[in-house]
Amino acid sequence: MLSFDSNDGVSNKQVIKNMVTMPVPKLVSEIMTREIKTLGPNQSFAEVVPLLAGNHIHHIIVVVEGFLVGVLSDRDVYRQLASVSNWNTKKVGEVMITNALTIPPETRLSHAAALMLSRRVNCLPVVGEQGKLVGLITSSDIIGLYKSLQEQLEESEL
Amino acid sequence: MLSFDSNDGVSNKQVIKNMVTMPVPKLVSEIMTREIKTLGPNQSFAEVVPLLAGNHIHHIIVVVEGFLVGVLSDRDVYRQLASVSNWNTKKVGEVMITNALTIPPETRLSHAAALMLSRRVNCLPVVGEQGKLVGLITSSDIIGLYKSLQEQLEESEL
Repeated sequence: MLSFDSNDGVSNKQVIKNMVTMPVPKLVSEIMTREIKTLGPNQSFAEVVPLLAGNHIHHIIVVVEGFLVGVLSDRDVYRQLASVSNWNTKKVGEVMITNALTIPPETRLSHAAALMLSRRVNCLPVVGEQGKLVGLITSSDIIGLYKSLQEQLEESEL
Repeated sequence: MLSFDSNDGVSNKQVIKNMVTMPVPKLVSEIMTREIKTLGPNQSFAEVVPLLAGNHIHHIIVVVEGFLVGVLSDRDVYRQLASVSNWNTKKVGEVMITNALTIPPETRLSHAAALMLSRRVNCLPVVGEQGKLVGLITSSDIIGLYKSLQEQLEESEL
């Protein structure tokens, strides 16, 4: 991973000022997805596979009465398929990751991005004060934010 | 995916100017990884599995004499493990994706991010004029760039 704090070929004294002339979201709550496809822990694992295959879904959030109880990534699913012979008899609750990293909605977006990198996750469920699932932010959301920001910067360099 | 072109709660007339007072990379060549772990197409698929399991590698680039011939993602690997019983007899060349999307090193970073989103890939091999592999850019690189940029913007809003 490369950061651009290094100054390869650029003098320390050279300060390039780039202008972003648009509102920039700062907090996860401003951009998180609020309508989330969820499953219950008692649903059959066999139901998950066509869901992942037929859509461009990489993460399934497992919820009981609005409370987050687990997360299932497509990697977890494929690993199970590869290693377990009786996977079609399993339930979502037996396969999901129960200690998923979550964030509150007022998390700074830079911190959400840092967490995705340091904890190697592509998806952060957003949990409110009452412990209920309120949203989801994924690496695709972050890449979309970067794209918009970078397009402005590429055009605006002074 | 949400873009922040929308102006929820922000008047059209309100222009927030954010300053980025550092050099901002514009092209893929400025930040791509140049030292890449590659495999040959005749290597055994069985060699791939411990490589993916033991490292935090999600993509393996397949090269012959410096020319890119294919890409193998961990998703492809796990799918194979799940669907093929004789996977340990296969070769890398039989399993890899041969029509991987590639980009030239002078691609704008905003365009690389846009391609990752529209083509749903996390990894873009960078191929030079002579058709040889010269680098690699991944979604983690993009998230790292966003993090640095966003940290500055969160601190600098006027």
